[in-house]
Amino acid sequence: MPHPHIVPGFDAAGFTAGIKKNGKPDLALIASRVPCKAAAVFTKNKFPAAPVIYDRQLLAHNPEGVYGVLINAGCANACTGVPGKANARLMAEWTERALGASDQSFFVMSTGVIGVQLPMEKLEKGIPEVAAKLRPDGWDDAANAIMTTDTRPKLFSHQVEIDGQTVSFTGIVKGAGMIHPNMATMLSVIATDISMAQPLLQQALKTAVDVSYNRISIDGDTSTNDTVLVLANGLAGNVEISDVGSPSYAAFVDALSAIAIVLAQAVVRDGEGVTKFVTVNVSGALSNDDAHTIANSIATSPLVKTAFFGNDANWGRILCAAGYAGVDLDPDRADLVIRDNDGGTVQLVKAGLPTDYQEKDAAAIFKQPEFTIHVTLGLGTGEATVWTCDLSHEYVTINGDYRT
Amino acid sequence: MPHPHIVPGFDAAGFTAGIKKNGKPDLALIASRVPCKAAAVFTKNKFPAAPVIYDRQLLAHNPEGVYGVLINAGCANACTGVPGKANARLMAEWTERALGASDQSFFVMSTGVIGVQLPMEKLEKGIPEVAAKLRPDGWDDAANAIMTTDTRPKLFSHQVEIDGQTVSFTGIVKGAGMIHPNMATMLSVIATDISMAQPLLQQALKTAVDVSYNRISIDGDTSTNDTVLVLANGLAGNVEISDVGSPSYAAFVDALSAIAIVLAQAVVRDGEGVTKFVTVNVSGALSNDDAHTIANSIATSPLVKTAFFGNDANWGRILCAAGYAGVDLDPDRADLVIRDNDGGTVQLVKAGLPTDYQEKDAAAIFKQPEFTIHVTLGLGTGEATVWTCDLSHEYVTINGDYRT
Repeated sequence: MPHPHIVPGFDAAGFTAGIKKNGKPDLALIASRVPCKAAAVFTKNKFPAAPVIYDRQLLAHNPEGVYGVLINAGCANACTGVPGKANARLMAEWTERALGASDQSFFVMSTGVIGVQLPMEKLEKGIPEVAAKLRPDGWDDAANAIMTTDTRPKLFSHQVEIDGQTVSFTGIVKGAGMIHPNMATMLSVIATDISMAQPLLQQALKTAVDVSYNRISIDGDTSTNDTVLVLANGLAGNVEISDVGSPSYAAFVDALSAIAIVLAQAVVRDGEGVTKFVTVNVSGALSNDDAHTIANSIATSPLVKTAFFGNDANWGRILCAAGYAGVDLDPDRADLVIRDNDGGTVQLVKAGLPTDYQEKDAAAIFKQPEFTIHVTLGLGTGEATVWTCDLSHEYVTINGDYRT
Repeated sequence: MPHPHIVPGFDAAGFTAGIKKNGKPDLALIASRVPCKAAAVFTKNKFPAAPVIYDRQLLAHNPEGVYGVLINAGCANACTGVPGKANARLMAEWTERALGASDQSFFVMSTGVIGVQLPMEKLEKGIPEVAAKLRPDGWDDAANAIMTTDTRPKLFSHQVEIDGQTVSFTGIVKGAGMIHPNMATMLSVIATDISMAQPLLQQALKTAVDVSYNRISIDGDTSTNDTVLVLANGLAGNVEISDVGSPSYAAFVDALSAIAIVLAQAVVRDGEGVTKFVTVNVSGALSNDDAHTIANSIATSPLVKTAFFGNDANWGRILCAAGYAGVDLDPDRADLVIRDNDGGTVQLVKAGLPTDYQEKDAAAIFKQPEFTIHVTLGLGTGEATVWTCDLSHEYVTINGDYRT
């Protein structure tokens, strides 16, 4: 039985280069043995980190002939000015040299503390070491080496049939604080052996991100380093997909979205201090955008999130957060139902008023580690789902002394 | 020496009507012996509480002949449907009856738990009791009776000369969770004896709110009940102010703004679990609106606020929050200086890069209970200041079990 994470033609590795103070692995490398098409989505933060600036230029310059990505944890290389940009470039060059790859064929990513220059001597020594460890089943090591406050490595794989061929996907992701707009430093790499024209790969990634990573984060509200990268090396043997109207393209988008959703949800589940994974579903809005705005308003409210932590089915805070989302609502049409994963449901609000539910029944659902909140607005057919978590003491502890 | 909070013609009182479970005062009444002009600013939440709906109609119907306001704590009368609206009206009617006042001459405000009907029998008994306690120096009792999670009553008074007359102001305010967009249930009443045309009073209040309460909260992001009410009974003896271009109008706006700022800052200082009061000043933006947007983004970032709590001068998080505010920036022009109330300053960032400051010097400022963050963008002349606080363990504790 083959290793579950293998994607034909790809190797991965992790290494301890000494960038993290705690002596844990901090350097990951993913490399294809043949050239890849690349697609990427980057942070919209106006202070983008040096690796983001480097990768944007690389994607514009060489989207069809890249070989992989080097990722370090422990230092974000953000707010580091001209030296930081030079260091990002050097990271890529040293990787290309270590692997005998062509110029401008490797992406770079960084995560960790902002405002500190990379320890380049450690990278110069570490990059040949991590390159020497590359192997087809090295994905666990790579996922482990990109962690910061993550409590566990996050990687998933699956395979689908497209155009009569088996197409493989393996994705890794590193977590993101509390997984909220302004807190996420989220890095993800998804490798696949699909054969696909590069513009379609980019379009497919945007579609997949909109139903996955953008459901745990609000557009535009991202950290200095957030990056999602897809590498496609074409070894699956399918006829290159070049038509967005084709069944093959649709099948690929579905498969890419599926793994992106699993990865994004894993980030929420492993958020800092998280004890609850909560799905917020809003329907009956005037538009999907309205529904998404309201769902995000609920999902990011500190008052709602502390109520999750406290097992308190405080529907007033949920409706209040819906009410200040800035979207037109009719209070007298709003319903609110909570549901656990075993199918137990309690309707808390009907037509804007509390029902005669029993508080203990509602609390029983809020005590579950995972549950869903359904808000129905009765105005139209707009619908959206986002995933969020609670706000706990542990979150305050982790972030009160992150740098010490 | 007169009582410092007396405003000629106004009486105030507090009473324990039994609405709060903890047996603390929960009913406040403010009444003028002569008719008042009224002005008010209400929440923009799409689920406005019943008293907000009632007060909006009263303000539209009778802005020049009101006598005061009745306020209860312990129950917000929000999400209470048709019965809630009828109860808000009854509160007002019982108050008018108790004082022999004309119909539709009293405002009502409520704060507390959402989604529960008011205990009307307690109000019916309590309203005549609180009315019997009205007296010119009853402001402390009124400020005490409107508290929810506030730790202390908040009231301020001052007097200014306008048109050769002494004009008095007394304001009370109740706190607002963590004083952030989505958390504030903020009620404030300011009484004054100025003589002023009602449309100007409304205009003056909007101007004052923009530099005070709106600096601790983002427009549109307000709770179900937020209300700021000004009552002006005209007993100061000045010639009625009817010209927005007059020195008297300008003097009144200044005086009203000054007390509103003091009240708003007091709300932040008494926020739930607050250990730090932080002023965020942004200058050099392309516009005042841009500066305000960036200042709010910094002031509401949970990562920034937990760093305040942890005494961690984590400037990377501050710039990151500026960067995702959605406003155009030039990272290479951004400066960041922190300053304590004794004038000690440390420049952390110059032209987008960290300076060679000593971490212990920065931490010494962040350890103060009050300090200021100055972000300079180098793009224009836009400037804004907002006030915020830290995010502490105590906040999570208070809000994890607010209803239990």
